[in-house]
Amino acid sequence: MEFFKGINKIKYEGPKSDNPLAFKFYNPDEVIGGKTMKEHLRFSMSYWHTMCGEGSDMFGRGTLDKSFGGNDKIEIYKNKALAAFEFMEKLNLDYFCFHDRDIAPEYDSLRETNRALDEIVEFIKELMKQYNKKLLWGTANLFSHPRYAHGAATSPYADVFAFAGAQVKKALDITKELEGQGYVFWGGREGYETLLNTNLELEMDNLARFLNLAVDYAKKIGFEGDFYIEPKPKEPTKHQYDFDVATVLSFLRKYGLDKQFKMNIEANHATLAGHTFQHELRIARVNGVFGSIDANQGDLLLGWDTDQFPTNVYDTALCMYEVLKAGGFTKGGLNFDAKTKRGSNTFEDMFIGYIAGMDAFALGLRIAYKIIEDGRIDKFIQERYSSYKEGIGKDILDGKVTLEDLEQYALSIGEVKNIGSGRQEYLENILNSIIFG
Amino acid sequence: MEFFKGINKIKYEGPKSDNPLAFKFYNPDEVIGGKTMKEHLRFSMSYWHTMCGEGSDMFGRGTLDKSFGGNDKIEIYKNKALAAFEFMEKLNLDYFCFHDRDIAPEYDSLRETNRALDEIVEFIKELMKQYNKKLLWGTANLFSHPRYAHGAATSPYADVFAFAGAQVKKALDITKELEGQGYVFWGGREGYETLLNTNLELEMDNLARFLNLAVDYAKKIGFEGDFYIEPKPKEPTKHQYDFDVATVLSFLRKYGLDKQFKMNIEANHATLAGHTFQHELRIARVNGVFGSIDANQGDLLLGWDTDQFPTNVYDTALCMYEVLKAGGFTKGGLNFDAKTKRGSNTFEDMFIGYIAGMDAFALGLRIAYKIIEDGRIDKFIQERYSSYKEGIGKDILDGKVTLEDLEQYALSIGEVKNIGSGRQEYLENILNSIIFG
Amino acid sequence: MEFFKGINKIKYEGPKSDNPLAFKFYNPDEVIGGKTMKEHLRFSMSYWHTMCGEGSDMFGRGTLDKSFGGNDKIEIYKNKALAAFEFMEKLNLDYFCFHDRDIAPEYDSLRETNRALDEIVEFIKELMKQYNKKLLWGTANLFSHPRYAHGAATSPYADVFAFAGAQVKKALDITKELEGQGYVFWGGREGYETLLNTNLELEMDNLARFLNLAVDYAKKIGFEGDFYIEPKPKEPTKHQYDFDVATVLSFLRKYGLDKQFKMNIEANHATLAGHTFQHELRIARVNGVFGSIDANQGDLLLGWDTDQFPTNVYDTALCMYEVLKAGGFTKGGLNFDAKTKRGSNTFEDMFIGYIAGMDAFALGLRIAYKIIEDGRIDKFIQERYSSYKEGIGKDILDGKVTLEDLEQYALSIGEVKNIGSGRQEYLENILNSIIFG
Amino acid sequence: MEFFKGINKIKYEGPKSDNPLAFKFYNPDEVIGGKTMKEHLRFSMSYWHTMCGEGSDMFGRGTLDKSFGGNDKIEIYKNKALAAFEFMEKLNLDYFCFHDRDIAPEYDSLRETNRALDEIVEFIKELMKQYNKKLLWGTANLFSHPRYAHGAATSPYADVFAFAGAQVKKALDITKELEGQGYVFWGGREGYETLLNTNLELEMDNLARFLNLAVDYAKKIGFEGDFYIEPKPKEPTKHQYDFDVATVLSFLRKYGLDKQFKMNIEANHATLAGHTFQHELRIARVNGVFGSIDANQGDLLLGWDTDQFPTNVYDTALCMYEVLKAGGFTKGGLNFDAKTKRGSNTFEDMFIGYIAGMDAFALGLRIAYKIIEDGRIDKFIQERYSSYKEGIGKDILDGKVTLEDLEQYALSIGEVKNIGSGRQEYLENILNSIIFG
Repeated sequence: MEFFKGINKIKYEGPKSDNPLAFKFYNPDEVIGGKTMKEHLRFSMSYWHTMCGEGSDMFGRGTLDKSFGGNDKIEIYKNKALAAFEFMEKLNLDYFCFHDRDIAPEYDSLRETNRALDEIVEFIKELMKQYNKKLLWGTANLFSHPRYAHGAATSPYADVFAFAGAQVKKALDITKELEGQGYVFWGGREGYETLLNTNLELEMDNLARFLNLAVDYAKKIGFEGDFYIEPKPKEPTKHQYDFDVATVLSFLRKYGLDKQFKMNIEANHATLAGHTFQHELRIARVNGVFGSIDANQGDLLLGWDTDQFPTNVYDTALCMYEVLKAGGFTKGGLNFDAKTKRGSNTFEDMFIGYIAGMDAFALGLRIAYKIIEDGRIDKFIQERYSSYKEGIGKDILDGKVTLEDLEQYALSIGEVKNIGSGRQEYLENILNSIIFG
Repeated sequence: MEFFKGINKIKYEGPKSDNPLAFKFYNPDEVIGGKTMKEHLRFSMSYWHTMCGEGSDMFGRGTLDKSFGGNDKIEIYKNKALAAFEFMEKLNLDYFCFHDRDIAPEYDSLRETNRALDEIVEFIKELMKQYNKKLLWGTANLFSHPRYAHGAATSPYADVFAFAGAQVKKALDITKELEGQGYVFWGGREGYETLLNTNLELEMDNLARFLNLAVDYAKKIGFEGDFYIEPKPKEPTKHQYDFDVATVLSFLRKYGLDKQFKMNIEANHATLAGHTFQHELRIARVNGVFGSIDANQGDLLLGWDTDQFPTNVYDTALCMYEVLKAGGFTKGGLNFDAKTKRGSNTFEDMFIGYIAGMDAFALGLRIAYKIIEDGRIDKFIQERYSSYKEGIGKDILDGKVTLEDLEQYALSIGEVKNIGSGRQEYLENILNSIIFG
Repeated sequence: MEFFKGINKIKYEGPKSDNPLAFKFYNPDEVIGGKTMKEHLRFSMSYWHTMCGEGSDMFGRGTLDKSFGGNDKIEIYKNKALAAFEFMEKLNLDYFCFHDRDIAPEYDSLRETNRALDEIVEFIKELMKQYNKKLLWGTANLFSHPRYAHGAATSPYADVFAFAGAQVKKALDITKELEGQGYVFWGGREGYETLLNTNLELEMDNLARFLNLAVDYAKKIGFEGDFYIEPKPKEPTKHQYDFDVATVLSFLRKYGLDKQFKMNIEANHATLAGHTFQHELRIARVNGVFGSIDANQGDLLLGWDTDQFPTNVYDTALCMYEVLKAGGFTKGGLNFDAKTKRGSNTFEDMFIGYIAGMDAFALGLRIAYKIIEDGRIDKFIQERYSSYKEGIGKDILDGKVTLEDLEQYALSIGEVKNIGSGRQEYLENILNSIIFG
Repeated sequence: MEFFKGINKIKYEGPKSDNPLAFKFYNPDEVIGGKTMKEHLRFSMSYWHTMCGEGSDMFGRGTLDKSFGGNDKIEIYKNKALAAFEFMEKLNLDYFCFHDRDIAPEYDSLRETNRALDEIVEFIKELMKQYNKKLLWGTANLFSHPRYAHGAATSPYADVFAFAGAQVKKALDITKELEGQGYVFWGGREGYETLLNTNLELEMDNLARFLNLAVDYAKKIGFEGDFYIEPKPKEPTKHQYDFDVATVLSFLRKYGLDKQFKMNIEANHATLAGHTFQHELRIARVNGVFGSIDANQGDLLLGWDTDQFPTNVYDTALCMYEVLKAGGFTKGGLNFDAKTKRGSNTFEDMFIGYIAGMDAFALGLRIAYKIIEDGRIDKFIQERYSSYKEGIGKDILDGKVTLEDLEQYALSIGEVKNIGSGRQEYLENILNSIIFG
């Protein structure tokens, strides 16, 4: 059974190709700085958008049917799985990511739901072997079902907390079973709609309790993947507890969880929080919690998560610059948490969306590597801070001064002599020279 | 010398008064819940807006001269001080706040600047005694001078760090001298314009070093006021390190400084960061770092700090609700970090701005107290989380369960039975009933 | 058959009532300025949110079932109608508004769909007589079906334009049949996702053609209700052609349609466009196109249409101020285009949402009337512009001057003497005095 | 006297050059599509940012002195002029733009101010001849002086209206004297701070009166340049009447002024209004009012006008695509309404800012031309709307159908057959292929 008829394996044809179904920039086996593009980029398919999302929005129904010809629930989900592996194979994607409820249907009782999940997991496990594909990370969907309307770990109702715990346990089990390299927590409902009805303190304490339970259980079953938290400031909730990387760090440090979690950073979530994508990556990097990436693109003139395929090469370049500076991915990767636009109503559009995103990240990788090789930007930064390498600057870094010492020093110089220029325009012009040169 | 001629001491005349120069709602000695309004609200004059700001903006010059008839620098600043105390006296304000450079002029050398500062501090000290006014907090202006164009503690230039340190030392000295109850750090230039020229890690490390030096020095001189950090996400800098309360907590916890600092929360900074004012107060409260408030109001349709006088009573009520729940101010207060609009070009407008703000907070206090007395909202919240008081909920809080236990429990119930309603519309209707009832 | 058991007719019980199911401020028969509250406010039920919306969002399923016990499509929609009239009756709502697809189901062919629509329209017509309820306005849903994914009147596909035309014809027929007082065009998909695929000029020309066809047809069938356009800047579309009132006026004037249309102004759409609600009402008023209102409330910290029940009394007061200044509603009214929060998962919440909104507008009406009676604000404005009543000001208004005359005048005065104060703080304090006095 | 010592005439050195003071992409005499780059781009220096702006912001003083060694007012402004022409000459800029108050100082009386202005205009006229430079457009600064705090043409004070009129008369005189090709109205204070103090209707009527006076006077003196309005939504004013292109069109059409004005579109103003730069250009183009461009770049995560030098090549490419589609500039051009960052505190940074902007637009021009030559995007659009070329589509465009005809047609087809895909991802991937191919 072939689901994407007429679409063959996508090949690299180079920048001059006008074949929509070819890579123009992503050349998987090309070596850049000692690693192939494929090894650098670790692209992953998002199961939810690709195999489940049908293009509905708040004002309209779906535009692309994704039942894949199935006649009953189980068959629909098995067909989704078959389609998923055909899709990954044709696009040369090594990894995928899923929520428990993406891959298998939900029933009226948890027991029945889990049984169906087990059946599909077995099915997927076989496909993974057959196609040689890997699970980048798994997660539990703790936001779609009405029981989670007020939160999962942060629900005011203990039964909901329990249910969420049960779901995470199972999701950890299957992630381990499928040798997932990571496990993600995205708290879409972990937040509040109004403080008028919310015990924020208890909710945040419970969120910490919940994460601790997950950490304990993972240890017990020997799950060795990375744990990630995926920050998002709002939507669906008015205010989510995992607002951005810094907020999550604040939370983790409070509850002593900062060694157990890294970040899964999404471009569109960064901008919804008022930050650039690069900012969030940098904050994660310098705090030692850079983990994985949800690769997509938002529209800065729109106030919601558009999850578009990333095509802005400035953004992919600066993203890959941070990834390279962080030493590259270890267990993480670039998961396309991206969906084709509602008006892109064919399967071909899905392929082209991935191609567009992979090409944009391939360009980004090349440029990032060139930025580092070129060296002018890094050198400028290094020299800019050189006053901390000697004299009063060195003493400051070495912890040798008090405020009184600084006052003596300042009085002795009277006023700061010329300070240098930040040279932003120069650096932006260099960036364009590297990109377009 | 009277600077505000024709304006007498502002009195409480009650809600029916149509005298623009009277309080309609702020009745200083009225007792609410065992304390006078005055004790609850601890209003403070911001020296910078009130005595220095002349109404210039990025597109136009000032509209209200504030040289107060002085002929040379020192005289101008002495007159500012005289005007300040006349202003506080007439408005019945007990407190004021300042930056070092608000109260005294800057000269070409630090030594000369410090000398002038000492002269004015002596002058102000006398006035404080004479008028029985107190210093809520002091701070150093580390953002206006060109030397701080790239930051103060986070400048790439060690001499600037040193100069900033010298300025803070002196500001701590004078704050202690004037028996200030607090000291604020607002890092207007502590951030970056572009990551292309920034060593973010070193800058944040240096910010921590700087704060540590200040803590050490304060201890040494026996300064017993509170240390506050004032979060703001951006402006003037593209991205400031003290983005919001959570970000600051993340930073403080990383560097082991979280016990030394509380927050000075500004309404307009909260909304620029994408939060409600109440949110920032709540986050500070549940983390034990609620300190003081910069009382003002932004315009949520504008993307910059408008620092308007607070007149939205919903906001002042929910603010005072948080303050009351926090047990009231200890060393902090309500400092009007607010300026009259550029088009409000008379001294009378300044008085009316303060009256408007004080009336709005008086209303807010009354309503907040009524919300708590009424009890319906608090009771709703308490009952909403009651499932954590027994059974599985209690076990969760008591740390008695594992994910496996939760799975057993969830399997046993099969599905969560009805979850309750969040009742937001009900609670908002109660709020209106309390406000307007 | 009673759908909302346990909920009786909602009565006015006054501000001290703590009965959630009573009006505290809306007293329908109370006379304010010569008209009852009911006549002033002309409240309307939105059929879509109230009878159809189940609380789903982009990340989760519905939380409140609205099939009302029906077993087949027609029965479900008949039950919706029965529930709707019970709801209106219990809430004392005189009006309702609908889209064609809210009141009847859609089938595979237009003929079948229209047949079902006719059947339900007859059913509703009877109910209207029985309950003495009126149709404020009707409209056609030209955005939910996938055929409209790229627009309706602005679709690149002529068949879609034709289909949309057919749907509007039918919607006009039934609106006339039910004696609707107005007809609304909201162009949810009339815009673009990207200019890369859009012939904007043709699309806007087609939109004008479409509106002209509707105007012609309405004339032909003798429909005498008002035509409204409802501006919205974005969502679902990235950019909608009817961005705000001014943009719509620009469009209508270009195509000579400005005499045929008024505005249906929605609070949440105003703020999404970067305007206050009052601004949009004012622009409509001074351009003679004030028509009707979609009463709701957005969250200015969120970037999407939350359609919350309006409870902010500042906003309802300034809205009613504009309505009173416009001479009140003629054929328009206050339609609650508002939905209970997803977490408000009971029918009772729906009643309380309407109560909260009606109370807030009742308060707004009282305050607006008091503002006008009080007169201080209007008088300030009148005096502020008094220089245009005589001298050079009068000459300017009378068209008697040229730039050369103005230059002569300006040279003669040399410089403008003191200009007055805008007194914003004074006016805001008056507003609070009126509201809380 | 050389003001920019050490900086020679900037030359094109090609993309591989690492000379910061060379063009890498802007090759003035290179022919693209029958015109040189220089003819296409018509670059202009903004006098205000370049010769006056010193890098102050709301929180800090200037960082770059621009008195150019002058000892008195007149000398300072003559030196500014000398520096300006040296700057233009070295950067190979053919055009400049100014406000009246940029080029000459303001005195206590209008007569004295005008006299100084005349003196400098003579001076500049000579320099223009000597250097062979042209005036792209002139304008009057009606926003910096406190007299304009409440507006100029829309001031509540008739004397201010008169003064503004006098200033515009003089600015038109000198623009004509210097053979300016255009004249711009930017209404920075033409708006309101609060509706509580504003007679919006009178203000907008007065704005129309004012523009009519200017049109009449221009005709009288035989000024044949283009009149432009420059939209901006807000800042400094809370709400400006010239919000965006559509709003201005609405206004011009109301007052019968739409044939007399074109638009001067600024990138950063577009995004502050919630639009892309390309959107504003497109709206102007299809309405026949495309005129000139203020070339700069905002930061979409900041809510104020940052006026940065444009370096985002996606934006410059899509801008130039619209310019080429509009047939190129006639009397307008690309004026760099851009300033170096406050931290870029040297004259060299100013040169580099212009180089960065000119290079970015040179790249944009090349890419735009390639997009059109490539033809895939235009062809996709053409085919997408092809259904309007025949059958029902043609009848719709030809005005041959009524809603009843459309209903008959729709009933006959029953349902719209498949609609096509919008193919956004495909088009974005083509765009990247063209840019990076």
